[in-house]
Amino acid sequence: MSSPFISFLTDFGGPASAPAVCRGVMWGIAPDARICDITHSVSRFAVRDGAFLLSCTVPYLPVGVHLAVVDPGVGTNRRPIAIRAARGDFLVGPDNGLLVPAAHALGGIDEVRALENPALWLPRVSSTFHGRDLFAPVAAHLAAGVDFSSLGPQLPADGIVDLRLPDAVAQDGVLDTAVLFIDTFGNCRLAGQAADLESIAGALQPAQEFAVIVEGRRSVVPWAATFGAVAIGSPLLYEDADYAGLAIGVNQGSAAEHFGLEIDRPIRLEPT
Amino acid sequence: MSSPFISFLTDFGGPASAPAVCRGVMWGIAPDARICDITHSVSRFAVRDGAFLLSCTVPYLPVGVHLAVVDPGVGTNRRPIAIRAARGDFLVGPDNGLLVPAAHALGGIDEVRALENPALWLPRVSSTFHGRDLFAPVAAHLAAGVDFSSLGPQLPADGIVDLRLPDAVAQDGVLDTAVLFIDTFGNCRLAGQAADLESIAGALQPAQEFAVIVEGRRSVVPWAATFGAVAIGSPLLYEDADYAGLAIGVNQGSAAEHFGLEIDRPIRLEPT
Amino acid sequence: MSSPFISFLTDFGGPASAPAVCRGVMWGIAPDARICDITHSVSRFAVRDGAFLLSCTVPYLPVGVHLAVVDPGVGTNRRPIAIRAARGDFLVGPDNGLLVPAAHALGGIDEVRALENPALWLPRVSSTFHGRDLFAPVAAHLAAGVDFSSLGPQLPADGIVDLRLPDAVAQDGVLDTAVLFIDTFGNCRLAGQAADLESIAGALQPAQEFAVIVEGRRSVVPWAATFGAVAIGSPLLYEDADYAGLAIGVNQGSAAEHFGLEIDRPIRLEPT
Repeated sequence: MSSPFISFLTDFGGPASAPAVCRGVMWGIAPDARICDITHSVSRFAVRDGAFLLSCTVPYLPVGVHLAVVDPGVGTNRRPIAIRAARGDFLVGPDNGLLVPAAHALGGIDEVRALENPALWLPRVSSTFHGRDLFAPVAAHLAAGVDFSSLGPQLPADGIVDLRLPDAVAQDGVLDTAVLFIDTFGNCRLAGQAADLESIAGALQPAQEFAVIVEGRRSVVPWAATFGAVAIGSPLLYEDADYAGLAIGVNQGSAAEHFGLEIDRPIRLEPT
Repeated sequence: MSSPFISFLTDFGGPASAPAVCRGVMWGIAPDARICDITHSVSRFAVRDGAFLLSCTVPYLPVGVHLAVVDPGVGTNRRPIAIRAARGDFLVGPDNGLLVPAAHALGGIDEVRALENPALWLPRVSSTFHGRDLFAPVAAHLAAGVDFSSLGPQLPADGIVDLRLPDAVAQDGVLDTAVLFIDTFGNCRLAGQAADLESIAGALQPAQEFAVIVEGRRSVVPWAATFGAVAIGSPLLYEDADYAGLAIGVNQGSAAEHFGLEIDRPIRLEPT
Repeated sequence: MSSPFISFLTDFGGPASAPAVCRGVMWGIAPDARICDITHSVSRFAVRDGAFLLSCTVPYLPVGVHLAVVDPGVGTNRRPIAIRAARGDFLVGPDNGLLVPAAHALGGIDEVRALENPALWLPRVSSTFHGRDLFAPVAAHLAAGVDFSSLGPQLPADGIVDLRLPDAVAQDGVLDTAVLFIDTFGNCRLAGQAADLESIAGALQPAQEFAVIVEGRRSVVPWAATFGAVAIGSPLLYEDADYAGLAIGVNQGSAAEHFGLEIDRPIRLEPT
């Protein structure tokens, strides 16, 4: 039997020592855990970005405990929770929607518990660092085998903050998608895969053109394998290498600015 | 019995491959060690910053070996040392004060050894990369169980470079503290916890005002839970989320510039 | 017997979650593997830089599997390969030269296989994320003990893309070297060690002068232990702390600009 697995995502910042403090706390409780840092570079307090990155990643991870802390409400009365997902994973973090898309990516929500058992926390809980004092210890105790029911009282699955990522819908020869995530360059990750675009347009060819419709404005954009396939300043539709999903970019520019895109903004794609 | 634990802090830089070289060297000697990177983003040669970050972190880590390399004196005749702390941990690094506050955070210095046993080093020791050639191998041998006395001759505890971080002192209704650390935004971490401020002012309320006295100049600054609770350009006292300790900042500005603060500068806090 | 060792180098970017996805995939296949991230901050698509960093690092790592993905040709018909090196290590990555200098640093190429066995990949292989879908699974299967011959057909060692890093040659009182790597500050890592320079100049002394000859232009540059030993804007020869090899820099400036240096440009060093 292999050692327990814990993944770990926060907005603490790449250079911060705070993730190490949490890893130390977890190894103190679950000494044989394998801890896999997903990223600590989520934009500060960007719950939606964290939820997206977590939901993209967990399906590729072993069944285990997934600790996520993007928590603008720390110190307020937002609840700390844990979710048991259908695949058998546990998700631990604040009740602000952060964990919900990942739970759905793991088959759905089986059970939710409020974290109300201080025996599973550090002896002193600060008002500002619940990652260290509360979430990491609970995640490690779950990894070490404590019963899910010992965490605290059950909550109804529809009693926690919901957060859904838009889906891509192919219908009547068009693909209705939306912006899931905008990276630091302004490239926009869209809902759906290349296969969804192929379902309305057949096998994708380099330079194949699509109409991109954003708030009624229509542009023609080529499908391309690389940014270099289009002129500097020109847009392209492509398969994002990190998530293997649809994306829209501008060679040496910002697609977010070019198309006026924001998170969740709908985009329609049509073969031309 | 759980596998040995090694924590690791340097100023090598986040993107550098040098930490991986050291991890590889350690895993070659102690194959079952759990290695926990604290941070490799300490400002280059900033011994004081490294000492602060190390001392904040180690109390939350399992008992083990703590390897720290911030070493402007590499290649000179500064001594490589190891310290056995009262909690049972070993600290390994250069004799420049880097390890001392962490040793005190672990209960104090029990014994110091100079690293003079080349049988515990790599076969060839360069003049510039003692992290790889000397410190990492010694740390890994300690983790693998070699006797502390085999590292080299004992040194008197007061024969190594000392480095103390200022304490917070609450007396006569004021809190005398000092700057421990200035981050890249100019936020200043101060000695002491929120509990120390409460000992002179009672339970802290949002917007509760304090006089901040720096070199005789007195300003009034509110206690706030978040930067957004004060106007842009205005200062605030707050509990730092990473260390759960006192801090002073300026919303979208630099407290270091605003108050003329430097590392170790005394600050007095008074209820108004 | 210790658990299998996998090192991991990419150009995915430090903050990216893509390395975690690959680590998760590997831990799903080889649950007890020790995974050592070398760096994920190789400049995007810089195969030569990746090859250099990998070849510097692997000699210090335990014998194991080394996974490297710097892959501008992903989605084209470049071959995925694995190399068995003389020391007993396996190198896994694209056939673009990336793995070759590391294989030579590990004693040379013993055997090469094309990765053509889909039973060792993820069930679905995207066109853009072969790190996750193909390379990481193969690396983990090797770590878990699958036979090298099961990966795919053998290729002749001279049938893969070659990439050699220049060597330093000391002869007739001069050292002929070349630029191996230019860092973000413009410091240039050169082929060879301080020992090579000592072989033509005797024990190196601070401020000892050398003629640096680049494309027929001759400058006089001192050997120095630290950047601060020369005036701001002045060049120095030094031993690079990360690799313990020769380097040329400019105090608070760029040696690449100062001397007009590029990767692989020959440099002659002569005692004056």
